[in-house]
Amino acid sequence: MNQIRRVIVYSPGVPGLTNALSKALPRIQVVEITDLSEEATEHFHNEILVTNNDMIGPLLYRPHGQFAFIQGTWAGVESIFSHIKKDKERPTLQVARFTNRQFSQLMSEYTLGQVINSERGLLTIRDDQTLGTKSWRSDEFAHPRLIKELTIGILGVGNIGREIARTFQFFGARILGLTRRFPSQHRSPFVSHYYETSTLHEMLPQCDYICNVLPRTSQTTRLLTDELLKSCQARRPVFINIGRDNVVDDQTLLRALDEDWLRQAVLDVFAEEPLPSDHSFWSHPKIVITPHIAGPTRASDVADCLRANLELFDQGAPIENLVDWEAQY
Amino acid sequence: MNQIRRVIVYSPGVPGLTNALSKALPRIQVVEITDLSEEATEHFHNEILVTNNDMIGPLLYRPHGQFAFIQGTWAGVESIFSHIKKDKERPTLQVARFTNRQFSQLMSEYTLGQVINSERGLLTIRDDQTLGTKSWRSDEFAHPRLIKELTIGILGVGNIGREIARTFQFFGARILGLTRRFPSQHRSPFVSHYYETSTLHEMLPQCDYICNVLPRTSQTTRLLTDELLKSCQARRPVFINIGRDNVVDDQTLLRALDEDWLRQAVLDVFAEEPLPSDHSFWSHPKIVITPHIAGPTRASDVADCLRANLELFDQGAPIENLVDWEAQY
Repeated sequence: MNQIRRVIVYSPGVPGLTNALSKALPRIQVVEITDLSEEATEHFHNEILVTNNDMIGPLLYRPHGQFAFIQGTWAGVESIFSHIKKDKERPTLQVARFTNRQFSQLMSEYTLGQVINSERGLLTIRDDQTLGTKSWRSDEFAHPRLIKELTIGILGVGNIGREIARTFQFFGARILGLTRRFPSQHRSPFVSHYYETSTLHEMLPQCDYICNVLPRTSQTTRLLTDELLKSCQARRPVFINIGRDNVVDDQTLLRALDEDWLRQAVLDVFAEEPLPSDHSFWSHPKIVITPHIAGPTRASDVADCLRANLELFDQGAPIENLVDWEAQY
Repeated sequence: MNQIRRVIVYSPGVPGLTNALSKALPRIQVVEITDLSEEATEHFHNEILVTNNDMIGPLLYRPHGQFAFIQGTWAGVESIFSHIKKDKERPTLQVARFTNRQFSQLMSEYTLGQVINSERGLLTIRDDQTLGTKSWRSDEFAHPRLIKELTIGILGVGNIGREIARTFQFFGARILGLTRRFPSQHRSPFVSHYYETSTLHEMLPQCDYICNVLPRTSQTTRLLTDELLKSCQARRPVFINIGRDNVVDDQTLLRALDEDWLRQAVLDVFAEEPLPSDHSFWSHPKIVITPHIAGPTRASDVADCLRANLELFDQGAPIENLVDWEAQY
């Protein structure tokens, strides 16, 4: 049995987290701090730190044993990797990314909502009302497709991608999934066919929607090339990006929309956030923008996630969702 | 075995219907006509007529045997009942309303989309883009509820209501259903609790969403009273109306929104359609308007529906979804 004295919290990005942790972990002392400097934290030993992912990088090479492990509050970990120098050894510190069932469900419900919005024209209809045109375009929206008539391509079928697959499969959609290794260790019963990067050109032309949930790694950067997007032109899928912006270059995406290879792009992640007000995406008629809210971190979900990891840690079992220093996510 | 010679189609409201019927019924002659007058149709005997519901009323008291049955192309049948005079006998003609699994799924996906839009702020975020404000309100939308954290009240748990229940139950929502008779003959495993009109005041205050799919009958008109809506003020549900407008009076609905008893109203059906351009609903900040597109009639779905009824008819079995002259729907 491992002995955990306290959980230390420094997470300005997640309001209410200290309270949520105290509620979820009634037998453990939860302490909120406001300074992560070496001086302020040097007395820590075998603590658990809960903090925003972008604060973790500078802590990676701190003295061994200061933190039993760090629980991040976000899913994306690229800000941590920017602190790993090539000539340095891999960190021995254990860092867990935030993820749990609820988080995957939030991503999944967002994606589903955007698919329904696109098939049913709900955002276009909303624009009619917002702009005061008071159009009544009932005929235009009288022939929607049901979700079961769609093929959904998911780029990245990890925890989040598999939950998205499960949701769309309930409605009867056909699901294609891009995986890093084929055959995958974690085959989902909800994915009809798996593809790997080398066969992506066979997957994309079949899709009505392409949903990206890939992490930012050197393998995923500019994965969606001009050539691959051009291969989509027969079905004209909608591209939904709730992963990372690096998967497609802005200019490539704009060309795919302007050439009508893609019907629409629903974007929740951008190279620069907030998206600069002079960015051409804002006024593009085929781009729907949301302010990085597909997968919000809710305090109660982080508390659930940490509680599960603490139970494993207490039993001496490996904690879950550890950042993999080799795979870069 | 009944002998069906032909299917007669007059359905200007459903483009492509004749083709869809011919494809679905390859062994039956499908004839499109453009005139339903007595003169033009007097030679029909034991035909099946497929037509829009609002054309059926005048045919109700035609000579017996002209039509084996009439297949309507819409779900709502109030336009038919307006042709039944109190001093007349009930029609002997069999009339089937249009409904099938796909139709219920379309209603269900619409409802789900609007719930996700409301929980995730997707229409508000869209307005930011449409109006060019380029706001980046990520913090405001960082604490959504999951569907499993919601209670959904469904007014009317017939075919459509039960499909909506099935969908929301997949996501883990708690489902309350208003039924005409309690206990219902057709209990759904997806409805947690049934209520009838006399106990509606116990159901509504528990709801986060109230979705109306009731038909227009004398029992459903102004069912949602001022008093009932006021009882919602603690949870402030969103009211989604994809049934008929008669369930709540316009002024009562406006008061419920202005007094904050309801958080929002998503309306797909109106007393006058198209909704007049000077109607106050258009610019109300808490009202979302769609142009009666929640449950569109797709030609292929009508063909599916008629094929199923023809199979029953050929076997001498009762056809499905017959209009009930007593129940008024």
